Amino acid sequence: MTEQGYDIGAVIERVFAVIESRRGADPETSYVAKLFHRGRGKIAQKLGEEAVETVIAGIDGKKQELIGESTDLLFHLMVLWANAGINPAEVAAELARREGISGLEEKKSRNW
Amino acid sequence: MTEQGYDIGAVIERVFAVIESRRGADPETSYVAKLFHRGRGKIAQKLGEEAVETVIAGIDGKKQELIGESTDLLFHLMVLWANAGINPAEVAAELARREGISGLEEKKSRNW
Amino acid sequence: MTEQGYDIGAVIERVFAVIESRRGADPETSYVAKLFHRGRGKIAQKLGEEAVETVIAGIDGKKQELIGESTDLLFHLMVLWANAGINPAEVAAELARREGISGLEEKKSRNW
Amino acid sequence: MTEQGYDIGAVIERVFAVIESRRGADPETSYVAKLFHRGRGKIAQKLGEEAVETVIAGIDGKKQELIGESTDLLFHLMVLWANAGINPAEVAAELARREGISGLEEKKSRNW
Repeated sequence: MTEQGYDIGAVIERVFAVIESRRGADPETSYVAKLFHRGRGKIAQKLGEEAVETVIAGIDGKKQELIGESTDLLFHLMVLWANAGINPAEVAAELARREGISGLEEKKSRNW
Repeated sequence: MTEQGYDIGAVIERVFAVIESRRGADPETSYVAKLFHRGRGKIAQKLGEEAVETVIAGIDGKKQELIGESTDLLFHLMVLWANAGINPAEVAAELARREGISGLEEKKSRNW
Repeated sequence: MTEQGYDIGAVIERVFAVIESRRGADPETSYVAKLFHRGRGKIAQKLGEEAVETVIAGIDGKKQELIGESTDLLFHLMVLWANAGINPAEVAAELARREGISGLEEKKSRNW
Repeated sequence: MTEQGYDIGAVIERVFAVIESRRGADPETSYVAKLFHRGRGKIAQKLGEEAVETVIAGIDGKKQELIGESTDLLFHLMVLWANAGINPAEVAAELARREGISGLEEKKSRNW
């Protein structure tokens, strides 16, 4: 199975389900539970820190490093979503809306 | 069709395909082409700026605002991937690897 | 007069006084008044964006670019201070406290 | 001696001198030496992380927290300057230039 075989949607859904399931876990043993316990401000801070690392990896131009930092960024973004009561489908809906995909038809986006 | 109906994987794949297709477009009329034209540093900078807005939206706690900023963040992250020759499946593979999903088996992650 | 002749404390005090004096100015003609008018969230956002540019300039290693971005960062930091009712002397006091300078005596800092 | 008695220029000069003096110290015992040892990328990353915390403190609006985070931000900015061969007077010169102070005369800035 090549990397191309991974479906990012399926993986995001599974990781998001894991995050949700850890909500009430022990902060001593679960990193996600610890983040939830520390609250929205700390989750947002971690997201910001991971974004700084992604920016730096993006400039350095090392592919594996950028993949790794992007993964950390996505993960903490999902924790922030879970904390705010947002599910991935809501973000997908907004992303689709902006791109101009609406169910059956597809139109060229003016802005992108 | 409810928001729950949107598949984030399918939307990411479509948006990523649009980004790739704009690579050689006119920077005057395509925002993506303009970003590619300005180069990796500027794409990374935009990603950083969108992350700042996501952090602020995360703290403010307004759900719609956070969905909107998350969408901008994801979009610019995908532009950075495209610029670096990374496809979403590679990030999915890394995300799956960390979460401990590997094709047939699934194990509890120690860290998450 | 060489660059060495510039006293950063005197310049910060003067710039801070200018920022304070623009507080009630017309947002149409004064950038500082516009920032104050848009509020704390937008000032913090601008600070974050300037920080992203400073991080990138720091990595690129171009001295003049880093000086320029540092200046923008300092300026927006001072606007945030003014907005929050903080004056430079209060930050100086905290910086001195951490460094272990307390009036007459100076001791080696353990952490730095 | 009140907080108002602290001269931010004098404190910055002293802290910068301490940073410079730690350049060749043992990374095991000196935080500054450790930062220098890890290099420009890591110093820039730390600056970015402190900026995220300053942005959050700015939004939260707690004065003491913002003073503390501003201090951390300034400190790491100075480490980045030292690493890049920039001294505070050079930043002061640029800040003065933008504000329109040039030695003897002072003019109203158009932008600020």
